[in-house]
Amino acid sequence: MSTTLDLYKMYETLSAEERQIWQSAQNFVEKEFMPSIKEHHRNATFPAEIIPTLGKLGFLGSQLPEEYGCAGVNNRSYGLIMQELERGDSSLRSVASVQGALVMYPIWRYGSEEQKKHWLPQLASGQKIGCFGLTEPDFGSNPSGMLTTAKPHKDGYLINGSKMWITNGSIADVAVVWAKLDGKIHGFLVPKETPGFTSTEVKGKFSLRASVTSELSFDDCFIPKNNILPEGRGLKAPLSCLSQARYGIAWGAIGSALATYHCALEYSQTRIQFGKPIASFQLIQQQLVTMASDITHAQLLAFRLAELKDNGEFHPVMISLAKRNNVSMALNTARSARNILAANGIVDEYPIMRHLMNLETVITYEGTHEIHTLILGQHLTGVSAFE
Amino acid sequence: MSTTLDLYKMYETLSAEERQIWQSAQNFVEKEFMPSIKEHHRNATFPAEIIPTLGKLGFLGSQLPEEYGCAGVNNRSYGLIMQELERGDSSLRSVASVQGALVMYPIWRYGSEEQKKHWLPQLASGQKIGCFGLTEPDFGSNPSGMLTTAKPHKDGYLINGSKMWITNGSIADVAVVWAKLDGKIHGFLVPKETPGFTSTEVKGKFSLRASVTSELSFDDCFIPKNNILPEGRGLKAPLSCLSQARYGIAWGAIGSALATYHCALEYSQTRIQFGKPIASFQLIQQQLVTMASDITHAQLLAFRLAELKDNGEFHPVMISLAKRNNVSMALNTARSARNILAANGIVDEYPIMRHLMNLETVITYEGTHEIHTLILGQHLTGVSAFE
Amino acid sequence: MSTTLDLYKMYETLSAEERQIWQSAQNFVEKEFMPSIKEHHRNATFPAEIIPTLGKLGFLGSQLPEEYGCAGVNNRSYGLIMQELERGDSSLRSVASVQGALVMYPIWRYGSEEQKKHWLPQLASGQKIGCFGLTEPDFGSNPSGMLTTAKPHKDGYLINGSKMWITNGSIADVAVVWAKLDGKIHGFLVPKETPGFTSTEVKGKFSLRASVTSELSFDDCFIPKNNILPEGRGLKAPLSCLSQARYGIAWGAIGSALATYHCALEYSQTRIQFGKPIASFQLIQQQLVTMASDITHAQLLAFRLAELKDNGEFHPVMISLAKRNNVSMALNTARSARNILAANGIVDEYPIMRHLMNLETVITYEGTHEIHTLILGQHLTGVSAFE
Amino acid sequence: MSTTLDLYKMYETLSAEERQIWQSAQNFVEKEFMPSIKEHHRNATFPAEIIPTLGKLGFLGSQLPEEYGCAGVNNRSYGLIMQELERGDSSLRSVASVQGALVMYPIWRYGSEEQKKHWLPQLASGQKIGCFGLTEPDFGSNPSGMLTTAKPHKDGYLINGSKMWITNGSIADVAVVWAKLDGKIHGFLVPKETPGFTSTEVKGKFSLRASVTSELSFDDCFIPKNNILPEGRGLKAPLSCLSQARYGIAWGAIGSALATYHCALEYSQTRIQFGKPIASFQLIQQQLVTMASDITHAQLLAFRLAELKDNGEFHPVMISLAKRNNVSMALNTARSARNILAANGIVDEYPIMRHLMNLETVITYEGTHEIHTLILGQHLTGVSAFE
Repeated sequence: MSTTLDLYKMYETLSAEERQIWQSAQNFVEKEFMPSIKEHHRNATFPAEIIPTLGKLGFLGSQLPEEYGCAGVNNRSYGLIMQELERGDSSLRSVASVQGALVMYPIWRYGSEEQKKHWLPQLASGQKIGCFGLTEPDFGSNPSGMLTTAKPHKDGYLINGSKMWITNGSIADVAVVWAKLDGKIHGFLVPKETPGFTSTEVKGKFSLRASVTSELSFDDCFIPKNNILPEGRGLKAPLSCLSQARYGIAWGAIGSALATYHCALEYSQTRIQFGKPIASFQLIQQQLVTMASDITHAQLLAFRLAELKDNGEFHPVMISLAKRNNVSMALNTARSARNILAANGIVDEYPIMRHLMNLETVITYEGTHEIHTLILGQHLTGVSAFE
Repeated sequence: MSTTLDLYKMYETLSAEERQIWQSAQNFVEKEFMPSIKEHHRNATFPAEIIPTLGKLGFLGSQLPEEYGCAGVNNRSYGLIMQELERGDSSLRSVASVQGALVMYPIWRYGSEEQKKHWLPQLASGQKIGCFGLTEPDFGSNPSGMLTTAKPHKDGYLINGSKMWITNGSIADVAVVWAKLDGKIHGFLVPKETPGFTSTEVKGKFSLRASVTSELSFDDCFIPKNNILPEGRGLKAPLSCLSQARYGIAWGAIGSALATYHCALEYSQTRIQFGKPIASFQLIQQQLVTMASDITHAQLLAFRLAELKDNGEFHPVMISLAKRNNVSMALNTARSARNILAANGIVDEYPIMRHLMNLETVITYEGTHEIHTLILGQHLTGVSAFE
Repeated sequence: MSTTLDLYKMYETLSAEERQIWQSAQNFVEKEFMPSIKEHHRNATFPAEIIPTLGKLGFLGSQLPEEYGCAGVNNRSYGLIMQELERGDSSLRSVASVQGALVMYPIWRYGSEEQKKHWLPQLASGQKIGCFGLTEPDFGSNPSGMLTTAKPHKDGYLINGSKMWITNGSIADVAVVWAKLDGKIHGFLVPKETPGFTSTEVKGKFSLRASVTSELSFDDCFIPKNNILPEGRGLKAPLSCLSQARYGIAWGAIGSALATYHCALEYSQTRIQFGKPIASFQLIQQQLVTMASDITHAQLLAFRLAELKDNGEFHPVMISLAKRNNVSMALNTARSARNILAANGIVDEYPIMRHLMNLETVITYEGTHEIHTLILGQHLTGVSAFE
Repeated sequence: MSTTLDLYKMYETLSAEERQIWQSAQNFVEKEFMPSIKEHHRNATFPAEIIPTLGKLGFLGSQLPEEYGCAGVNNRSYGLIMQELERGDSSLRSVASVQGALVMYPIWRYGSEEQKKHWLPQLASGQKIGCFGLTEPDFGSNPSGMLTTAKPHKDGYLINGSKMWITNGSIADVAVVWAKLDGKIHGFLVPKETPGFTSTEVKGKFSLRASVTSELSFDDCFIPKNNILPEGRGLKAPLSCLSQARYGIAWGAIGSALATYHCALEYSQTRIQFGKPIASFQLIQQQLVTMASDITHAQLLAFRLAELKDNGEFHPVMISLAKRNNVSMALNTARSARNILAANGIVDEYPIMRHLMNLETVITYEGTHEIHTLILGQHLTGVSAFE
């Protein structure tokens, strides 16, 4: 099993079942994902073969109920899965987050029984892939300004507009697309083959290279009436999905940080300069201690959040705090790790530069660091400073 | 009751008894301490009258057993008391820390039954005051180098040497003095009136002004045989006391941070510039959010530490992590708060500058930030970088 | 002469005359100011006896022309004087800044010939003391919102309002007061004895304790017509004075940093822990190197600014950049120095805590760090973000 | 011409000739380099065709004398060239630095007249490419421990050992190799075709992708007697080359920062969110202001360093200070720029992610940040903390 820093003995509090899920995620990542990630990252390709495996292991929409083919695990287990996937690569966790939190979750929460029965089992098993279309080229931090519209047309709707930075966009079988219908945001299920729906892969990414990012276009794209998500309305519907995803990111970031921290620690213990391991230099220890201390904070946030979420005592600002802090922590940890490895830190023989590059996306998507600052600021002060 | 930031609902997990102790500490600080602290801070005087009150409330050595007149509370309650005392002033918490963790604790842990029965009830009630003599003028971060010696002499020992930066030194009825006997560190109880024992108050402090700091001198100071602490030997004895005190500091720092955070928050909500409360400016929100986020980390560390300590699963490096982090957090919080108050931040109409000044000591004593970095670094890497 | 860090050999470029002025400022500070500063800081008293000496040495309004009794030195010399005064104490530099940049400068630039002839020589010699009334209790960062008014009355004006945080307010013979006359800001000379003009000293300051700070009140305070400054109108008049003062602060901050840096360096070279000087530890060297590197930046900014100012190529945003950077640098330097001295850093046997406390004011007054950020931000982006 | 931030009007002090060289470098980068860099970076290929152009423009060893075919420019011009090359890409500046400072400089300074006449004109024109072999796999920060040896053999030497992280290693016609001869470090010219000399390109770099990095191996590699550099001996010879290169890096880093700063500034002025350009948000302005302020420091350091170097008043610690500061500044600037561009910051449509990745090498090579900290620390304190 992978080593996990556990200065405050949080992982010792896991139940046997949680521990088993955790181990299963570690085994999967180590044995089935790690051997090929270097090549995928180099070539900017997506390891599509892993999706059914993720499904088989119950890692897609794992927190959703078993009646729809999902694993129905608690929030701590869900978090541990995300941690281990992102210890592998942020792309891997992203794919699972999109599928589980941004596609399956809205179908489960806002969909009709028919939609749930149709889609959830196929998505849970990884037979089908989904994507989530909220962000638009000109509306990143301010999704309520979206221009994509749905207009009633015959027995359905015509969707027009475009969506940007869509993970899995070009490989998805179905897109959950958010569009304004009579000025109000609604979610729509848009199958891949729908006429008028096209996607273009974003090229030249130097972050999350092992995942697919796309632009989606909708040009008089007709979808039938029962493809609307009947129960979600207004911006709070997609925002509730983002909360689920951000929760997963808060855990995932710990995984990334564990990967770079342990790599740097081991490197420092074996790399000899001036006749001794560089781990014995104060300037190196200082960096390792800051990493370990910050990882410990992140773990405490994540474990407590799991508990609050399981108890239904959870508020979105708690997640903003954890997403903002933990990703920033992981990025700083990757940067320090890169520094400790010196020249070796820039080659993909080590995972560090890959994580460092990935986290530049992770700190931006699902609410930038600044946006979460302002969400928290509004909560604390009672005053909005967004505009 | 004082407002307490609780973004992760930690204080909601308190038991009724813990909550009552917490409230009692808050009441004491608000009603009996706060009215005079401004004057004491201005004049650099110690509010000696509070010590018996601290005793009556059970705040001196509160975690020690009731059979010796102590309150016998759990570590969470002990922590909450420290939090509230330091919300008042770091001096107040320091006085309680010294009495409880550095005087009563070693007597309880390393003393004879006779010593315990004699001293603990008097110290718990605040009838007697103690101090802790470990640090020497030339041995701050490296106490094992101490020069103070105890030599067998008749039916006792002759102590020679000096100790520096001793809180309560000039007002203590008894000093727990650490000295080398045959090259090995031992603890000795030195009553105030012992011939050859003198103390000099340090003047010109601009930090912890409301407490007394002294230099102690021992010049052929004879103490009888039964004043040696029989069960403690070697540096690990005083270090175990420091662990107790540092645990209290980790909680106390949260109290200081709550004081400056809430002051800055309220100020920002009422101070109008450019036609609106400054709380509505992004640059102010960013500072408040960082404070609140960092306070939340500190709270999670402290609550978890209490649990680990109650369960006996606790390791000194955990405390190093919490002391290092929480005090640094409190200092940064005070600095940001000072900044938010602008000119008003420098006058003692507000508590902020006082906390800012105090924390410059708190970050230094009981192991500087750097020393805790190296303790943690050694634990993580397995290599010492002290020398 | 005091030691001055000069890694980029800037001080070697000084002319003989500049060097002589520099030395004269150093001598004054070391011999006439330093011996008493500890006591004044402890007691929060102002060493009034130094003002005539400052005058005699040409340090009051030193950059103004000789025809009005001033020294007429260039901007480099003016800067060096400010550097050395603040190496002593920020209070000392503040007093000189107020007199020179905020009282004499507006009289010289916006006053009538009669006003100049009357006031400048007396102020230059230190026979008279002045103060500058711009900030109001409710208008710190936004002076244009001021409520103080001047209304035409008989052969003069009635001034009503109040001013806050006025250095030298209670000891000044004359106040340069900014008030709105028909909605437009004008400067007025208000002699101390004017009926309706009162001042109250601010108590409980824990910053700039060796200078006097006051609140000024104007209650139907009549001043004759020829006490208005005829040539200044609008906010840009007082802002131009602030530019002069901020220029001096940019230099002064270097002086403060030199004081704390050299103290910490020397301490680290003589303080032995673990058998060697603490200067030999990487964690200490890192702090010293950051200090020295940052001081070097500040010196380059200040020297270049002097050149640009002498050449008339100077723009206020340059000064905002230097004030913002150099004071922040000095504050960080003081904090690191405090840290290096550990416990010794909090007592006034060393100058560090005093500088640390002072700089909390210096970073706030004459435009807070945030306000200078927004001034620069507007300049760089072309968009205002003040409101 | 490219836009250059010049808040302190440093570039206005350039002579006509310097300005012309500067412009010529800008033109070259914009017209001949930028059009292909995106592809080279994507594909990790080196644009070999630019080397002769660099030669023609006088950018290779530009500070060396005209008698050897070099441009013989002053240090300011040399710096400006480096700035503009690195504004393009750190790879480009690296190639020029290696050729000029690490190959031509040691030949010029330590070579025989014959070596100079033979190599310098060909290297200056870009007909031949050189590389510099100092670092070894196990000796990065501590080159004096090198294991590569030269042994006298017949009329020459046998070289054995290996060198790592060698820019241009696989494309070089000649390597300047440092090896121990009788325990003392000497430089040797090793032509590419020498039997026993092989090079292997490092693959999987995610930094400086547009340049070639190699490992060199020497296996009983015989070179004739007159291939030793006769005038250099001891570690100070290669260190003097590093000083030349680091000087160029200090300037180059400014170029990188200008590229990312201007990109972020323009983006912020045109990107609309919440109905206005993001440049109007305080959190964005704060980042831009920090960048601009830090770039200004770096410029002042570089300009002053040029002057000191031209005057022969230059000391290596000055360069350590500038290399350490300016590269760290450029990296922070790239990170902030990436942040301001949000999602757009990770694609190579913009130059930011490329610079961010490059700078992870630049902060490491030619002395890591930490090594320069310790060089400066030793200079300031008089005590070494390397070991």
